[in-house]
Amino acid sequence: MQLFYCPEVYNGLFELNAEESRHCIKVLRKEAGDIIHLIDGKGCFYEVKITLASQKKVGFEIVNEWRETIRPYKLHIAIAPTKSIDRFEWFLEKATEIGVDEITPILCERSERKIIKTDRLNKILLAATKQSLKASIPVLNEAVPFKDFISELKDEKVYIAHCEPYEKQSLKNFQPSDATICIGPEGDFSIDEIDLALEQGHTAIHLGSSRLRTETAGIVACHTLALQYESK
Amino acid sequence: MQLFYCPEVYNGLFELNAEESRHCIKVLRKEAGDIIHLIDGKGCFYEVKITLASQKKVGFEIVNEWRETIRPYKLHIAIAPTKSIDRFEWFLEKATEIGVDEITPILCERSERKIIKTDRLNKILLAATKQSLKASIPVLNEAVPFKDFISELKDEKVYIAHCEPYEKQSLKNFQPSDATICIGPEGDFSIDEIDLALEQGHTAIHLGSSRLRTETAGIVACHTLALQYESK
Repeated sequence: MQLFYCPEVYNGLFELNAEESRHCIKVLRKEAGDIIHLIDGKGCFYEVKITLASQKKVGFEIVNEWRETIRPYKLHIAIAPTKSIDRFEWFLEKATEIGVDEITPILCERSERKIIKTDRLNKILLAATKQSLKASIPVLNEAVPFKDFISELKDEKVYIAHCEPYEKQSLKNFQPSDATICIGPEGDFSIDEIDLALEQGHTAIHLGSSRLRTETAGIVACHTLALQYESK
Repeated sequence: MQLFYCPEVYNGLFELNAEESRHCIKVLRKEAGDIIHLIDGKGCFYEVKITLASQKKVGFEIVNEWRETIRPYKLHIAIAPTKSIDRFEWFLEKATEIGVDEITPILCERSERKIIKTDRLNKILLAATKQSLKASIPVLNEAVPFKDFISELKDEKVYIAHCEPYEKQSLKNFQPSDATICIGPEGDFSIDEIDLALEQGHTAIHLGSSRLRTETAGIVACHTLALQYESK
Protein backbone atom coordinates (compact mmCIF):
# COMPACT_ATOMS: atom_id res chain seq x y z
CA MET A 1 0.00 0.00 0.00
CA GLN A 2 1.29 3.43 -1.02
CA LEU A 3 0.69 6.09 1.64
CA PHE A 4 0.60 9.83 1.05
CA TYR A 5 1.19 12.42 3.74
CA CYS A 6 -1.29 15.17 4.42
CA PRO A 7 -0.70 16.80 7.81
CA GLU A 8 -3.46 19.36 7.29
CA VAL A 9 -6.29 16.90 6.69
CA TYR A 10 -7.59 17.15 10.25
CA ASN A 11 -7.85 20.91 9.78
CA GLY A 12 -10.24 20.31 6.93
CA LEU A 13 -7.76 21.04 4.13
CA PHE A 14 -8.40 18.21 1.71
CA GLU A 15 -5.46 18.53 -0.68
CA LEU A 16 -1.97 17.12 -1.09
CA ASN A 17 1.03 19.43 -1.23
CA ALA A 18 2.97 19.93 -4.46
CA GLU A 19 5.50 17.15 -3.85
CA GLU A 20 2.90 14.55 -2.91
CA SER A 21 0.62 15.67 -5.75
CA ARG A 22 3.38 15.28 -8.32
CA HIS A 23 4.22 11.80 -7.05
CA CYS A 24 0.55 10.82 -7.07
CA ILE A 25 -0.28 12.06 -10.57
CA LYS A 26 2.99 12.04 -12.50
CA VAL A 27 4.70 8.97 -11.05
CA LEU A 28 1.78 6.78 -9.98
CA ARG A 29 -0.58 8.03 -12.73
CA LYS A 30 -3.56 8.34 -10.44
CA GLU A 31 -6.70 9.98 -11.84
CA ALA A 32 -9.85 11.65 -10.54
CA GLY A 33 -12.09 8.99 -9.01
CA ASP A 34 -9.15 6.80 -7.89
CA ILE A 35 -8.91 5.75 -4.26
CA ILE A 36 -5.65 6.52 -2.42
CA HIS A 37 -4.57 6.25 1.20
CA LEU A 38 -2.98 8.88 3.33
CA ILE A 39 -1.76 9.57 6.83
CA ASP A 40 -1.78 12.75 8.87
CA GLY A 41 1.47 11.86 10.66
CA LYS A 42 -0.35 12.01 13.98
CA GLY A 43 -1.87 8.55 14.06
CA CYS A 44 -4.74 8.63 11.53
CA PHE A 45 -5.14 6.80 8.24
CA TYR A 46 -7.56 8.05 5.58
CA GLU A 47 -9.00 6.36 2.54
CA VAL A 48 -9.83 9.15 0.10
CA LYS A 49 -11.20 9.56 -3.41
CA ILE A 50 -9.37 11.93 -5.75
CA THR A 51 -11.62 14.78 -6.92
CA LEU A 52 -8.96 16.97 -8.52
CA ALA A 53 -5.99 15.35 -10.26
CA SER A 54 -3.39 18.00 -11.01
CA GLN A 55 0.39 17.55 -10.70
CA LYS A 56 0.45 20.71 -8.56
CA LYS A 57 -2.51 19.97 -6.35
CA VAL A 58 -4.49 16.83 -5.69
CA GLY A 59 -7.89 17.41 -4.09
CA PHE A 60 -9.86 14.61 -2.47
CA GLU A 61 -12.84 13.66 -0.36
CA ILE A 62 -12.64 11.33 2.63
CA VAL A 63 -14.20 7.90 2.18
CA ASN A 64 -13.04 6.34 5.42
CA GLU A 65 -10.73 7.04 8.32
CA TRP A 66 -9.29 5.05 11.22
CA ARG A 67 -6.68 5.39 13.93
CA GLU A 68 -3.58 3.22 13.98
CA THR A 69 -3.25 0.69 16.78
CA ILE A 70 -1.67 2.45 19.70
CA ARG A 71 1.57 0.97 20.99
CA PRO A 72 1.25 0.05 24.68
CA TYR A 73 4.30 2.15 25.59
CA LYS A 74 5.85 5.49 24.80
CA LEU A 75 9.52 5.55 23.89
CA HIS A 76 11.78 8.56 23.73
CA ILE A 77 15.35 7.94 22.58
CA ALA A 78 17.93 10.60 23.41
CA ILE A 79 20.95 9.77 21.29
CA ALA A 80 24.24 11.40 20.37
CA PRO A 81 24.37 11.91 16.59
CA THR A 82 27.17 9.92 15.01
CA LYS A 83 30.19 11.45 13.29
CA SER A 84 28.99 9.90 10.02
CA ILE A 85 25.49 11.28 9.48
CA ASP A 86 24.64 8.16 7.42
CA ARG A 87 24.74 6.11 10.58
CA PHE A 88 22.39 8.50 12.36
CA GLU A 89 20.02 8.42 9.40
CA TRP A 90 20.05 4.62 9.50
CA PHE A 91 19.13 4.77 13.16
CA LEU A 92 16.20 7.10 12.41
CA GLU A 93 14.88 4.83 9.68
CA LYS A 94 15.20 1.61 11.67
CA ALA A 95 13.88 3.09 14.92
CA THR A 96 10.82 4.29 13.01
CA GLU A 97 10.25 0.82 11.55
CA ILE A 98 10.61 -0.90 14.92
CA GLY A 99 8.78 1.76 16.91
CA VAL A 100 9.75 5.02 18.61
CA ASP A 101 7.76 8.12 19.54
CA GLU A 102 10.30 10.84 20.09
CA ILE A 103 14.00 11.34 19.36
CA THR A 104 16.26 13.98 20.87
CA PRO A 105 19.78 14.42 19.50
CA ILE A 106 22.00 15.02 22.51
CA LEU A 107 25.31 16.85 22.50
CA CYS A 108 27.76 15.16 24.84
CA GLU A 109 31.27 15.90 26.02
CA ARG A 110 32.68 13.38 23.57
CA SER A 111 30.26 14.04 20.70
CA GLU A 112 32.01 14.19 17.36
CA ARG A 113 29.04 15.86 15.67
CA LYS A 114 27.44 18.95 17.12
CA ILE A 115 25.35 20.16 14.18
CA ILE A 116 22.18 18.50 13.00
CA LYS A 117 20.04 19.58 10.07
CA THR A 118 16.59 18.40 10.97
CA ASP A 119 14.98 19.05 7.54
CA ARG A 120 16.62 16.10 5.83
CA LEU A 121 16.22 13.92 8.92
CA ASN A 122 12.50 14.65 9.08
CA LYS A 123 12.18 13.52 5.46
CA ILE A 124 13.81 10.22 6.42
CA LEU A 125 11.40 9.80 9.33
CA LEU A 126 8.43 10.47 7.04
CA ALA A 127 9.65 8.04 4.36
CA ALA A 128 10.23 5.32 6.96
CA THR A 129 6.81 5.94 8.53
CA LYS A 130 5.08 5.56 5.16
CA GLN A 131 7.18 2.56 4.18
CA SER A 132 6.36 0.71 7.37
CA LEU A 133 2.67 1.59 7.01
CA LYS A 134 2.50 3.58 10.21
CA ALA A 135 0.44 6.76 10.65
CA SER A 136 2.50 8.53 13.35
CA ILE A 137 5.78 10.17 12.45
CA PRO A 138 8.26 10.15 15.34
CA VAL A 139 8.93 13.62 16.71
CA LEU A 140 12.51 14.79 16.15
CA ASN A 141 13.53 17.48 18.62
CA GLU A 142 16.25 20.02 18.16
CA ALA A 143 19.70 19.00 19.43
CA VAL A 144 20.30 19.86 23.07
CA PRO A 145 23.32 19.58 25.42
CA PHE A 146 23.03 16.30 27.33
CA LYS A 147 23.51 17.91 30.74
CA ASP A 148 20.64 20.35 30.12
CA PHE A 149 18.47 17.52 28.80
CA ILE A 150 19.08 15.20 31.73
CA SER A 151 18.65 17.92 34.34
CA GLU A 152 15.14 18.69 33.15
CA LEU A 153 13.88 15.09 33.37
CA LYS A 154 13.60 14.67 37.12
CA ASP A 155 10.19 13.08 37.26
CA GLU A 156 10.42 10.76 34.30
CA LYS A 157 11.66 7.21 33.96
CA VAL A 158 15.06 7.66 32.37
CA TYR A 159 17.62 4.99 31.49
CA ILE A 160 21.21 5.74 30.62
CA ALA A 161 23.08 3.10 28.60
CA HIS A 162 26.83 3.28 29.03
CA CYS A 163 29.92 1.08 28.96
CA GLU A 164 31.69 2.10 32.17
CA PRO A 165 32.15 -0.69 34.74
CA TYR A 166 29.44 0.65 37.06
CA GLU A 167 26.62 -1.50 38.42
CA LYS A 168 24.06 -1.74 35.64
CA GLN A 169 20.98 -3.75 34.84
CA SER A 170 19.89 -5.12 31.52
CA LEU A 171 17.19 -3.05 29.83
CA LYS A 172 15.31 -6.31 29.39
CA ASN A 173 14.58 -6.33 33.13
CA PHE A 174 12.30 -3.33 32.72
CA GLN A 175 8.91 -2.88 31.13
CA PRO A 176 8.26 0.85 31.47
CA SER A 177 5.11 2.26 29.88
CA ASP A 178 6.87 5.55 29.28
CA ALA A 179 10.63 5.47 28.93
CA THR A 180 13.43 7.80 27.95
CA ILE A 181 16.60 5.94 27.00
CA CYS A 182 19.88 7.81 26.61
CA ILE A 183 22.53 6.51 24.20
CA GLY A 184 25.95 8.16 24.20
CA PRO A 185 28.39 9.03 21.43
CA GLU A 186 31.09 6.83 19.87
CA GLY A 187 33.41 7.50 22.84
CA ASP A 188 30.61 6.86 25.39
CA PHE A 189 29.23 9.23 28.00
CA SER A 190 31.86 10.81 30.25
CA ILE A 191 32.01 9.86 33.91
CA ASP A 192 30.68 13.34 34.74
CA GLU A 193 27.68 12.82 32.49
CA ILE A 194 26.92 9.39 33.93
CA ASP A 195 27.28 10.65 37.51
CA LEU A 196 24.96 13.57 36.80
CA ALA A 197 22.31 11.19 35.42
CA LEU A 198 22.63 8.89 38.44
CA GLU A 199 22.42 11.83 40.87
CA GLN A 200 19.09 12.71 39.26
CA GLY A 201 17.86 9.23 40.18
CA HIS A 202 18.06 7.80 36.67
CA THR A 203 18.85 4.14 35.99
CA ALA A 204 22.09 2.82 34.50
CA ILE A 205 21.50 0.03 31.99
CA HIS A 206 23.37 -2.17 29.57
CA LEU A 207 22.14 -3.54 26.27
CA GLY A 208 23.76 -6.96 26.36
CA SER A 209 27.30 -8.26 26.25
CA SER A 210 28.21 -7.12 22.74
CA ARG A 211 30.04 -3.89 22.05
CA LEU A 212 27.62 -1.93 19.89
CA ARG A 213 28.03 1.18 17.82
CA THR A 214 25.92 4.17 18.86
CA GLU A 215 23.32 3.70 16.14
CA THR A 216 23.13 -0.05 16.80
CA ALA A 217 22.63 0.60 20.52
CA GLY A 218 19.74 2.91 19.63
CA ILE A 219 18.05 0.27 17.50
CA VAL A 220 18.66 -2.47 20.04
CA ALA A 221 17.07 -0.28 22.74
CA CYS A 222 13.97 0.24 20.57
CA HIS A 223 13.72 -3.47 19.83
CA THR A 224 14.27 -4.54 23.44
CA LEU A 225 11.21 -2.55 24.50
CA ALA A 226 9.19 -3.67 21.47
CA LEU A 227 9.90 -7.28 22.39
CA GLN A 228 8.92 -6.75 26.04
CA TYR A 229 5.47 -5.68 24.89
CA GLU A 230 5.05 -8.16 22.05
CA SER A 231 2.28 -10.68 22.62
CA LYS A 232 3.31 -14.31 22.32
CA MET B 1 41.49 -1.48 21.45
CA GLN B 2 42.73 -1.79 17.88
CA LEU B 3 42.60 -5.37 16.57
CA PHE B 4 44.59 -6.73 13.65
CA TYR B 5 43.63 -9.78 11.66
CA CYS B 6 46.00 -12.67 11.15
CA PRO B 7 44.21 -15.82 10.00
CA GLU B 8 47.45 -17.78 9.67
CA VAL B 9 48.66 -17.34 13.22
CA TYR B 10 47.42 -20.75 14.37
CA ASN B 11 49.46 -22.30 11.54
CA GLY B 12 52.56 -20.79 13.07
CA LEU B 13 52.93 -17.95 10.56
CA PHE B 14 53.68 -15.00 12.80
CA GLU B 15 53.34 -12.08 10.40
CA LEU B 16 50.67 -9.62 9.28
CA ASN B 17 49.72 -9.34 5.61
CA ALA B 18 50.64 -6.27 3.56
CA GLU B 19 47.41 -4.37 4.23
CA GLU B 20 47.47 -4.93 7.99
CA SER B 21 51.22 -4.24 8.13
CA ARG B 22 50.81 -0.91 6.36
CA HIS B 23 48.00 0.11 8.71
CA CYS B 24 50.05 -0.94 11.73
CA ILE B 25 53.28 0.83 10.80
CA LYS B 26 52.30 3.70 8.51
CA VAL B 27 48.97 4.74 10.04
CA LEU B 28 49.34 3.75 13.68
CA ARG B 29 53.13 4.29 13.80
CA LYS B 30 53.86 1.11 15.72
CA GLU B 31 57.48 0.11 16.21
CA ALA B 32 59.48 -3.01 17.04
CA GLY B 33 58.89 -3.87 20.69
CA ASP B 34 55.36 -2.44 20.73
CA ILE B 35 52.50 -4.65 21.89
CA ILE B 36 49.52 -5.08 19.56
CA HIS B 37 46.44 -7.29 19.63
CA LEU B 38 45.17 -9.53 16.90
CA ILE B 39 42.46 -12.06 16.10
CA ASP B 40 42.55 -15.15 13.95
CA GLY B 41 38.91 -14.75 12.88
CA LYS B 42 38.15 -18.15 14.37
CA GLY B 43 37.66 -17.18 18.00
CA CYS B 44 41.15 -16.49 19.34
CA PHE B 45 42.70 -13.25 20.55
CA TYR B 46 46.47 -12.80 20.70
CA GLU B 47 48.60 -10.23 22.46
CA VAL B 48 51.83 -10.04 20.46
CA LYS B 49 55.08 -8.10 20.49
CA ILE B 50 56.32 -6.65 17.18
CA THR B 51 59.72 -8.05 16.22
CA LEU B 52 59.86 -6.74 12.64
CA ALA B 53 58.29 -3.37 11.83
CA SER B 54 58.13 -2.96 8.06
CA GLN B 55 55.22 -1.44 6.12
CA LYS B 56 55.20 -4.54 3.96
CA LYS B 57 55.49 -7.14 6.65
CA VAL B 58 55.07 -6.99 10.41
CA GLY B 59 56.61 -9.93 12.28
CA PHE B 60 55.73 -10.67 15.89
CA GLU B 61 56.00 -13.10 18.77
CA ILE B 62 53.07 -14.20 20.88
CA VAL B 63 52.92 -12.88 24.44
CA ASN B 64 49.51 -14.14 25.39
CA GLU B 65 46.46 -15.77 23.84
CA TRP B 66 42.88 -16.45 24.89
CA ARG B 67 39.62 -17.61 23.38
CA GLU B 68 36.60 -15.32 23.16
CA THR B 69 33.59 -16.14 25.32
CA ILE B 70 31.47 -18.59 23.38
CA ARG B 71 27.86 -17.52 22.71
CA PRO B 72 25.41 -20.07 24.15
CA TYR B 73 23.71 -20.50 20.77
CA LYS B 74 24.58 -20.83 17.12
CA LEU B 75 22.72 -18.62 14.67
CA HIS B 76 22.59 -18.98 10.91
CA ILE B 77 20.67 -16.29 9.03
CA ALA B 78 19.55 -17.13 5.50
CA ILE B 79 18.49 -13.82 3.97
CA ALA B 80 17.56 -12.53 0.54
CA PRO B 81 20.03 -9.80 -0.46
CA THR B 82 18.31 -6.45 -0.89
CA LYS B 83 18.01 -4.57 -4.17
CA SER B 84 20.17 -1.82 -2.69
CA ILE B 85 23.42 -3.51 -1.66
CA ASP B 86 23.94 -0.80 0.99
CA ARG B 87 21.06 -2.23 2.96
CA PHE B 88 22.54 -5.73 2.81
CA GLU B 89 25.94 -4.42 3.87
CA TRP B 90 24.31 -2.62 6.77
CA PHE B 91 22.65 -5.89 7.79
CA LEU B 92 26.03 -7.67 7.72
CA GLU B 93 27.64 -5.03 9.91
CA LYS B 94 24.84 -4.91 12.47
CA ALA B 95 24.35 -8.69 12.60
CA THR B 96 28.08 -9.06 13.30
CA GLU B 97 27.89 -6.53 16.14
CA ILE B 98 24.86 -8.16 17.72
CA GLY B 99 25.96 -11.74 17.08
CA VAL B 100 25.63 -14.19 14.19
CA ASP B 101 27.67 -17.22 13.16
CA GLU B 102 26.79 -17.87 9.55
CA ILE B 103 24.99 -15.99 6.78
CA THR B 104 23.66 -17.48 3.56
CA PRO B 105 22.35 -15.15 0.85
CA ILE B 106 19.25 -16.83 -0.56
CA LEU B 107 17.81 -16.31 -4.03
CA CYS B 108 14.03 -16.29 -3.91
CA GLU B 109 11.27 -16.08 -6.49
CA ARG B 110 10.80 -12.40 -5.74
CA SER B 111 14.46 -11.53 -5.18
CA GLU B 112 15.42 -8.28 -6.83
CA ARG B 113 19.13 -8.99 -6.51
CA LYS B 114 20.61 -12.26 -7.71
CA ILE B 115 24.31 -11.43 -7.77
CA ILE B 116 26.46 -11.06 -4.70
CA LYS B 117 30.14 -10.18 -4.62
CA THR B 118 31.40 -11.78 -1.47
CA ASP B 119 34.86 -10.11 -1.45
CA ARG B 120 33.58 -6.69 -0.41
CA LEU B 121 31.03 -8.23 1.94
CA ASN B 122 33.73 -10.26 3.70
CA LYS B 123 35.69 -7.04 4.25
CA ILE B 124 32.63 -5.54 5.94
CA LEU B 125 32.28 -8.60 8.16
CA LEU B 126 35.95 -8.38 9.15
CA ALA B 127 35.75 -4.64 9.90
CA ALA B 128 32.62 -5.12 12.02
CA THR B 129 34.21 -8.06 13.87
CA LYS B 130 37.27 -5.99 14.77
CA GLN B 131 35.20 -2.93 15.64
CA SER B 132 33.01 -4.87 18.03
CA LEU B 133 36.06 -6.57 19.58
CA LYS B 134 35.04 -10.06 18.60
CA ALA B 135 37.47 -12.76 17.48
CA SER B 136 35.18 -14.82 15.21
CA ILE B 137 34.24 -13.55 11.79
CA PRO B 138 30.78 -14.72 10.69
CA VAL B 139 30.95 -17.17 7.78
CA LEU B 140 29.41 -15.78 4.59
CA ASN B 141 28.32 -18.55 2.23
CA GLU B 142 27.87 -18.27 -1.50
CA ALA B 143 24.36 -17.33 -2.64
CA VAL B 144 22.05 -20.30 -3.18
CA PRO B 145 18.47 -20.71 -4.50
CA PHE B 146 16.11 -20.74 -1.51
CA LYS B 147 14.35 -23.95 -2.55
CA ASP B 148 17.67 -25.82 -2.76
CA PHE B 149 18.72 -24.37 0.57
CA ILE B 150 15.55 -25.27 2.41
CA SER B 151 15.36 -28.76 0.95
CA GLU B 152 18.75 -29.65 2.35
CA LEU B 153 17.95 -28.64 5.93
CA LYS B 154 15.64 -31.45 6.98
CA ASP B 155 17.17 -32.23 10.33
CA GLU B 156 17.88 -28.74 11.54
CA LYS B 157 15.78 -26.27 13.48
CA VAL B 158 14.67 -23.85 10.81
CA TYR B 159 12.40 -20.82 11.17
CA ILE B 160 10.87 -19.01 8.25
CA ALA B 161 9.77 -15.41 8.85
CA HIS B 162 7.07 -14.26 6.45
CA CYS B 163 4.15 -11.83 6.24
CA GLU B 164 1.42 -14.08 4.81
CA PRO B 165 -1.64 -14.54 7.06
CA TYR B 166 -0.72 -18.11 8.01
CA GLU B 167 -0.59 -19.31 11.59
CA LYS B 168 2.72 -18.13 12.98
CA GLN B 169 4.41 -17.84 16.32
CA SER B 170 6.63 -15.08 17.60
CA LEU B 171 10.33 -15.90 17.42
CA LYS B 172 10.49 -14.79 21.04
CA ASN B 173 8.65 -17.98 22.04
CA PHE B 174 11.68 -20.04 21.06
CA GLN B 175 15.11 -20.45 22.58
CA PRO B 176 16.89 -22.76 20.16
CA SER B 177 20.55 -23.52 20.79
CA ASP B 178 21.15 -23.90 17.07
CA ALA B 179 18.82 -22.00 14.75
CA THR B 180 18.56 -21.18 11.08
CA ILE B 181 16.26 -18.23 10.43
CA CYS B 182 15.10 -17.45 6.89
CA ILE B 183 14.29 -13.86 5.92
CA GLY B 184 12.69 -13.21 2.54
CA PRO B 185 13.15 -10.47 -0.06
CA GLU B 186 11.38 -7.08 -0.22
CA GLY B 187 8.29 -8.74 -1.75
CA ASP B 188 8.31 -11.57 0.83
CA PHE B 189 8.63 -15.30 0.22
CA SER B 190 6.13 -16.69 -2.31
CA ILE B 191 3.35 -19.00 -1.14
CA ASP B 192 5.20 -21.86 -2.89
CA GLU B 193 8.36 -21.11 -0.96
CA ILE B 194 6.53 -20.92 2.37
CA ASP B 195 4.63 -24.13 1.68
CA LEU B 196 7.83 -25.94 0.76
CA ALA B 197 9.42 -24.86 4.03
CA LEU B 198 6.40 -25.95 6.05
CA GLU B 199 6.26 -29.32 4.24
CA GLN B 200 9.83 -29.90 5.40
CA GLY B 201 8.63 -29.47 8.97
CA HIS B 202 10.08 -26.00 9.46
CA THR B 203 8.44 -23.39 11.70
CA ALA B 204 6.65 -20.25 10.51
CA ILE B 205 7.43 -17.23 12.67
CA HIS B 206 6.74 -13.51 12.88
CA LEU B 207 9.04 -10.85 14.23
CA GLY B 208 6.46 -8.60 15.89
CA SER B 209 3.65 -6.41 14.69
CA SER B 210 5.69 -3.88 12.75
CA ARG B 211 6.25 -4.11 9.03
CA LEU B 212 10.01 -4.39 8.70
CA ARG B 213 12.31 -4.10 5.74
CA THR B 214 14.34 -7.20 4.88
CA GLU B 215 17.55 -5.95 6.49
CA THR B 216 15.70 -4.75 9.59
CA ALA B 217 14.01 -8.15 9.93
CA GLY B 218 17.46 -9.76 9.80
CA ILE B 219 18.75 -7.56 12.61
CA VAL B 220 15.62 -8.00 14.69
CA ALA B 221 15.96 -11.78 14.35
CA CYS B 222 19.59 -11.64 15.56
CA HIS B 223 18.65 -9.42 18.47
CA THR B 224 15.61 -11.47 19.49
CA LEU B 225 17.82 -14.52 19.97
CA ALA B 226 20.57 -12.48 21.67
CA LEU B 227 18.01 -11.18 24.15
CA GLN B 228 16.64 -14.66 24.86
CA TYR B 229 20.08 -15.73 26.00
CA GLU B 230 21.08 -12.55 27.79
CA SER B 231 21.48 -12.93 31.52
CA LYS B 232 19.46 -10.54 33.65
